[in-house]
Amino acid sequence: MPKLDLSQIASTSRCSYPGKLADGFEGRSSQAVGDASGITQFGVNLVRLAPGAQSSLRHYHMKQDEFLIMTEGELVLVDDNGAHVRHPGDCASFPARDANGHHLINKTDVPAAFLVVGTRTPTETAFYSDIDMKVNVDTDGYSFTRKDGSPLTADQIGDKT
Amino acid sequence: MPKLDLSQIASTSRCSYPGKLADGFEGRSSQAVGDASGITQFGVNLVRLAPGAQSSLRHYHMKQDEFLIMTEGELVLVDDNGAHVRHPGDCASFPARDANGHHLINKTDVPAAFLVVGTRTPTETAFYSDIDMKVNVDTDGYSFTRKDGSPLTADQIGDKT
Repeated sequence: MPKLDLSQIASTSRCSYPGKLADGFEGRSSQAVGDASGITQFGVNLVRLAPGAQSSLRHYHMKQDEFLIMTEGELVLVDDNGAHVRHPGDCASFPARDANGHHLINKTDVPAAFLVVGTRTPTETAFYSDIDMKVNVDTDGYSFTRKDGSPLTADQIGDKT
Repeated sequence: MPKLDLSQIASTSRCSYPGKLADGFEGRSSQAVGDASGITQFGVNLVRLAPGAQSSLRHYHMKQDEFLIMTEGELVLVDDNGAHVRHPGDCASFPARDANGHHLINKTDVPAAFLVVGTRTPTETAFYSDIDMKVNVDTDGYSFTRKDGSPLTADQIGDKT
């Protein structure tokens, strides 16, 4: 299936974060372009961020490499070193186990987008840089806890779970 | 290493094809942006094609998924179904074992480029759609033969080996 018609690939705004941590992600949408095109060995997603939206909570992966290329608009990449403005054609790379967490924020008043590639692994753990949370991912789905494995608190997730 | 400075990543025009099959690839250059940025689990290359240049001989992979996104200019993607003009933002996907071989050609008078992602596997075999050739890849490098495993002929590769 060499020719991909991006307009025909479903878009989702689903957010897996628990409780109030999902607030503010309404402006983020994602198309699973890799899955839709029949490749299975790595993931490829086209992520669109409306004005004010962010890609994720700032995080890093323990097993999976991640690579992205900007495709539209302007985004701010935030990591331990600060804020970096990125434009179409700019690339960024996040090797597994590099504890420099990242996310991208659209601080403009027009949409922006990037294509992101990630390794596929049977299980994964990611840590969140700015809050006391990690996620374990396996065939049962996502399991969010504090970094020591204990349950998230009501202060963290509110009463929306 | 989130911020990648593409201007600082080495570019190569090396072509692995044997003999005269390497002719005509002088206008192709590639930057191993994934390797340069510290990721190891999949390959990411930024490939630039001068006017008239092509990405490769038309081929398909037996083990490795391949995905690309156009980043600059205009290229013609050629596969079993014909020629498809592609522009920045267009994506194409080549699942392993899909025998619909592909390559890209720059038929314009200005440079063009694409970012390509491929699975990393210990060994690989690829078949060439338009000539009687395959390649086996392992830790010893590339081994080009006819599709039945016999040596390439002088007619195929000339006297330049």
